[in-house]
Amino acid sequence: MGWSILDQKLDQDQLLVNESLFSQGNGFLGVRGNFEEGYQDNMTSIRGTYINAFHDETSIEYGEKLHGFPETQQKLVNVIDSQSITIDIDGERFSMFEGEVLAFTRTLHMDKGYSERKVHWKSPKGKEVEIRFRRLISFVDKELFLQSVHIQPISSINDVVITSNVNGDISNFVDPSDPRVASGHAKRLHVIDVDQQENTHSVTNKTYETKLEVCCMTRSEANQDTTTYEVNLLDFAVEEKYHFQSNSVIEFTKYNVYTDTYRHGDNVKKSAEKIHAKMQSQSFDDLLQSQKKYLDAFWEKSDIKIQGADDLQQGIRFNLYQLLQSVGKDSVSNISAKGLSGEGYEGHYFWDTEIYMFPVFLLTQPEIAKQLLLHRFSILGAAKERAIEVGHHKGALFPWRTITGTECSGFFPAGTAQYHISADIAYSFVQYYLVTGDWEFLKEYGAELLVETSRLWIDMGHEKDGKFRIDDVTGPDEYTCIVNNNFYTNVMAKNNLAWAVQSLSIVKDHDTGAYDELLSKLSVSKEEIAEWERASERMYLPYDEKLGIHAQDDTFLNKDVWNIEATPKEKFPLLLHYHPLTLYRYQVCKQADTILGHFLLEDEADEDTIRRSYDYYEKVTTHDSSLSYCVFSIMAAKLGYDEKAYHYFNETARLDLDNTHKNTKDGLHMANMGGTWLALVYGFAGLRMKQQGLSFQPKLPEVWNSLQFQVQYQGQQLSVSLTKDKVTYTLVEGTSLTLKHKEETITVSLNDAVEMSM
Amino acid sequence: MGWSILDQKLDQDQLLVNESLFSQGNGFLGVRGNFEEGYQDNMTSIRGTYINAFHDETSIEYGEKLHGFPETQQKLVNVIDSQSITIDIDGERFSMFEGEVLAFTRTLHMDKGYSERKVHWKSPKGKEVEIRFRRLISFVDKELFLQSVHIQPISSINDVVITSNVNGDISNFVDPSDPRVASGHAKRLHVIDVDQQENTHSVTNKTYETKLEVCCMTRSEANQDTTTYEVNLLDFAVEEKYHFQSNSVIEFTKYNVYTDTYRHGDNVKKSAEKIHAKMQSQSFDDLLQSQKKYLDAFWEKSDIKIQGADDLQQGIRFNLYQLLQSVGKDSVSNISAKGLSGEGYEGHYFWDTEIYMFPVFLLTQPEIAKQLLLHRFSILGAAKERAIEVGHHKGALFPWRTITGTECSGFFPAGTAQYHISADIAYSFVQYYLVTGDWEFLKEYGAELLVETSRLWIDMGHEKDGKFRIDDVTGPDEYTCIVNNNFYTNVMAKNNLAWAVQSLSIVKDHDTGAYDELLSKLSVSKEEIAEWERASERMYLPYDEKLGIHAQDDTFLNKDVWNIEATPKEKFPLLLHYHPLTLYRYQVCKQADTILGHFLLEDEADEDTIRRSYDYYEKVTTHDSSLSYCVFSIMAAKLGYDEKAYHYFNETARLDLDNTHKNTKDGLHMANMGGTWLALVYGFAGLRMKQQGLSFQPKLPEVWNSLQFQVQYQGQQLSVSLTKDKVTYTLVEGTSLTLKHKEETITVSLNDAVEMSM
Repeated sequence: MGWSILDQKLDQDQLLVNESLFSQGNGFLGVRGNFEEGYQDNMTSIRGTYINAFHDETSIEYGEKLHGFPETQQKLVNVIDSQSITIDIDGERFSMFEGEVLAFTRTLHMDKGYSERKVHWKSPKGKEVEIRFRRLISFVDKELFLQSVHIQPISSINDVVITSNVNGDISNFVDPSDPRVASGHAKRLHVIDVDQQENTHSVTNKTYETKLEVCCMTRSEANQDTTTYEVNLLDFAVEEKYHFQSNSVIEFTKYNVYTDTYRHGDNVKKSAEKIHAKMQSQSFDDLLQSQKKYLDAFWEKSDIKIQGADDLQQGIRFNLYQLLQSVGKDSVSNISAKGLSGEGYEGHYFWDTEIYMFPVFLLTQPEIAKQLLLHRFSILGAAKERAIEVGHHKGALFPWRTITGTECSGFFPAGTAQYHISADIAYSFVQYYLVTGDWEFLKEYGAELLVETSRLWIDMGHEKDGKFRIDDVTGPDEYTCIVNNNFYTNVMAKNNLAWAVQSLSIVKDHDTGAYDELLSKLSVSKEEIAEWERASERMYLPYDEKLGIHAQDDTFLNKDVWNIEATPKEKFPLLLHYHPLTLYRYQVCKQADTILGHFLLEDEADEDTIRRSYDYYEKVTTHDSSLSYCVFSIMAAKLGYDEKAYHYFNETARLDLDNTHKNTKDGLHMANMGGTWLALVYGFAGLRMKQQGLSFQPKLPEVWNSLQFQVQYQGQQLSVSLTKDKVTYTLVEGTSLTLKHKEETITVSLNDAVEMSM
Repeated sequence: MGWSILDQKLDQDQLLVNESLFSQGNGFLGVRGNFEEGYQDNMTSIRGTYINAFHDETSIEYGEKLHGFPETQQKLVNVIDSQSITIDIDGERFSMFEGEVLAFTRTLHMDKGYSERKVHWKSPKGKEVEIRFRRLISFVDKELFLQSVHIQPISSINDVVITSNVNGDISNFVDPSDPRVASGHAKRLHVIDVDQQENTHSVTNKTYETKLEVCCMTRSEANQDTTTYEVNLLDFAVEEKYHFQSNSVIEFTKYNVYTDTYRHGDNVKKSAEKIHAKMQSQSFDDLLQSQKKYLDAFWEKSDIKIQGADDLQQGIRFNLYQLLQSVGKDSVSNISAKGLSGEGYEGHYFWDTEIYMFPVFLLTQPEIAKQLLLHRFSILGAAKERAIEVGHHKGALFPWRTITGTECSGFFPAGTAQYHISADIAYSFVQYYLVTGDWEFLKEYGAELLVETSRLWIDMGHEKDGKFRIDDVTGPDEYTCIVNNNFYTNVMAKNNLAWAVQSLSIVKDHDTGAYDELLSKLSVSKEEIAEWERASERMYLPYDEKLGIHAQDDTFLNKDVWNIEATPKEKFPLLLHYHPLTLYRYQVCKQADTILGHFLLEDEADEDTIRRSYDYYEKVTTHDSSLSYCVFSIMAAKLGYDEKAYHYFNETARLDLDNTHKNTKDGLHMANMGGTWLALVYGFAGLRMKQQGLSFQPKLPEVWNSLQFQVQYQGQQLSVSLTKDKVTYTLVEGTSLTLKHKEETITVSLNDAVEMSM
């Protein structure tokens, strides 16, 4: 149960949503769930193929441009389209929107890693066929996008023509009704080569500004001899035409291999050729099998089982599967806000990665998590340059949105001003160390990143009356921008600074030579370390004595409270209906802000404060951001607000499957998908990982029978199973693991199942 | 002395500056001081003719566009060019940059209202002539731009050709090195008609978006018969060619009449024809005379005489003259930030009018001041719509920059967020009442404007703990944006609210029927009036007990102090070298903010507080805005910081004449010009006008022998003369005026000179 997503609808809005839901990818390559043969001319489709991090640059225009505003933006490019396959049955072109669809199902097989579309079609002239399309993007051979078409004649058929295309004349999606998508930015690459090789054909494109190249080399085959077969090399495309005269089953397979400059260097065509040669011997079934094997291994570590809620079971699996499809697994890429499922947010990487998605990989697939860190580390140089550009003297200021490291935000109050992203990234390096214990990674990468981000806080903050203050930043809540001493930012910076000190100390404890080398390489003095320590200790965390809560910032609690209840439903999300200044003027939060700080660093406040904070901020939060629910779910679980925890979890688990935010067509809400996992593991299971070790505070939602998941912790794999009355901890890999269950410390040995009461 | 501006330089940078300095205008029409014959091809010229408020609309692009961001911007349009006159002397084209300029002077006659260029020129082939160009833009017939050319042969000349052009193929200025001036926005109008009438010729243009029309109809004449005379009507221009064979003086006169849709309705050509017909009988000398008469009357009321500082005398006269040339004298126009002298700031009207320029007219030419108020009143409807658009429920939010009332600011933190402009406008209506005592104007216009702006404060502010607070606005200091309880904004809003109440009460005192009518027309209830009163009384004015000063805003004084002294000179103005966020993070002011509040509403703080404020804020102010010096000068004078008062005054008086801000080429700094007058009258003479009446606290700068000026007050004209040991008050018009000299109340009768000791 819960291993597949099913679609049987053909209405236009749902088609666009399904293009996102049925998108496939492997972190390198992504293809939206379009129909091979397309829709009808008057129907909108966002037909897309994307390569993670493959982008062009466009200029950013401003009404008034001030110093340090970025001049260009990176934009994920829709690359060569190899999806196209059309079928003519006795001269009639197959279409889901002509003739009669007698039966239709589309299935995403999340256990097997492919999608399938089955159609029983009756042509306008009455010819009947069953057609099955399957497609997969290989997790094993990342360049491969594989398609198969199976045509079963039902009525008597004489003549079948299959036309297969690889088209390089591609633009990004333009919505004429959306002025934000300037048509001048739509076409970002052009065809530089169309070629025919021994048994493959290729199209190579190049982007206009970044001069990146992408090649799609395709090979196709059929199970039957053709009466005629022709290839047309056009200026911008390759077209193959297979002509069959037959009334028996036709199997058609298309192997599309994508290579790009980032991963394959200068000669993308040559690389594609080699990859084709290497996989020549593999049939569709072989590839299905290796895909299945990969996914078995994935699910073994990452699956979460819920008994008692099939729709949620499906939701969590879907979210995990899409995370796997979206996450960059090399150090040049990361996870876009929409994964590889759409063009929303221009394929940019945000703090979403560190706070909402990285933990999922860290605790289930730490090798992938490591790649995410390496990508961030690779843009540390750009972050240091950016710090200087905006006027700092030192430190690293990470861009709010980027692909290869340059700031791509065109609205700084809710962009560059979100300095917290630098602390968020620092936090993820610390989390990685806590979970893996990999001090050498800390030595090679983590310490440097912690040092440079700490330098930023020292440069931009200042001590006054014994408190270290950070002015004029924006916290996660974009409904209140440019504030002083945002609790979230300050508490994260405090942690950042403390860990810069601690990371060096950890390296020193392991290897004093390496420590000395590191200090010298980074020009760190003892005085500087003391400065970080002092700033961290004296970090100002605004607190309202009367309310007994941390204030979101210096003046948030002095503002008027927005009347959420009196605001008409159609006015949400507020940002589409009110000028930002109007929103800034009120206590109204787009998403968890202080509450998120309390989650990520819960020991910085006592539980009573956290409870009062939760009670307070929940009332002023609209959850207009999809990044909000999961945090409220986790914190509600922590505080024993069980119904709320369950309610908010429900909002996350099927946000895209049920299209509750109404914009799934533009791509999936990846951060929210990570949030579903966080709500289960940090929320209901109450997992925390701190220097003291791993701990759990489990609580199973009443309506469920059980919840079961695995975590990877310091090279060991722990299975955790919650039922109504007990929790079972089993060490699946490793030797022995000590953890805390509620207030009790227990040790679990390999294959040992320790049962604890709920 | 001091009635003219002289130029004898021909270097290119100074030419551009002189185009601004020698610009002429009358508040309706403005022409930059270009040379009739142009420069050489490789030289930059900003050749411009402008009609106040005549604009087109262009789109504003944003990196990210949020709700309520204006989509279009208004842009003052460079209209039809009628300046062009070329002269060929025996086949050689006259140019200041070929042959030899044996003598050259250019003079702006501020007493007579015209400019004059005299050149003694030797052609490359050795022919010598003296040429005198004169030009004036009539203050009496606002449509008229008049040119005269006087050619005196020195060596023997056989043949003179004068070519006169009216050219409709005009674009706004584009600087290819300045990305802010997109070429797409340069050409904003096109020729719709070129025509020949009985003795005139005309070109009519139309703007692309606003569909406004402008006609330039020209008539020219010479004192000699021509051998040939030809007229060419081109698609976009009219060209007249006069050919003389003569060795005697040639006088050539060109009468250019401009009409536009705003002032002349639909048939701009017909209107121009009528105006030509009307002035047909007037010679150049007649027109010179009527111009002189107008200016005599102007200077009689507006001149300021300084003895002991010729350069400053020249400076203040220049500034007053340019104010007269720039101020709109009809209710469809106002005063652009650059007047009619250039294209900087797109011809927009800012708060500059109310705070820096309006008072000059109010106290010297109240009829012009009234027009400025009527223009603001005419856009009250747009301001009410804007309030709704950004999310308010009621009230009027005036646009930060506009021509006809729509918000044209493309960067809201230093644009729309400057809500204080609404209070500034309200303040000017109050000032008008205080000076004129015109309660009927209050009834017709002022009260309504005060009511609608008060409604804005009530809607956007809120009471907390007994204090009325105003969050998320930007004060005058654009180096600290989006703050809570900006002292300046709050104190101005307090005054705004109090005067809404008071204005109604004044109307009631004069006419209870009118009062009832007004309440009903504006739907004002007694409760609402009480609400304004309460908000005004409880207005929160942040005060720092430790420093004993008003804080610029809730958190300004908690920020780190920018080290101005350690900042390299080339890093000023800071806004060109630091990201706005970096500036926001420090105590560093672009210009007077709290100090300006203390000036405009000095009774809201005691003198000790004001002194401490001055001492404090002066240290953190860079004066990167040209609106800063005059305020510091006034306040230094008030506080007895005589040297500082004099120093800051000096910075204002010749800012453009000496091009100290290095950008006079883009147009004159009109607000600063008003500021010079303010520094003299409010600063050195210590004038204040309050409900209690007019008062003076005079103090003459040590290096001066005397300072003399006039003010209009409640229909009377008072002359004030400061010498080293005494002040003389003379009532030049009126019957009797009671005023305060320092702490003493005195009464001055007509033609009575009351002498008081300094």
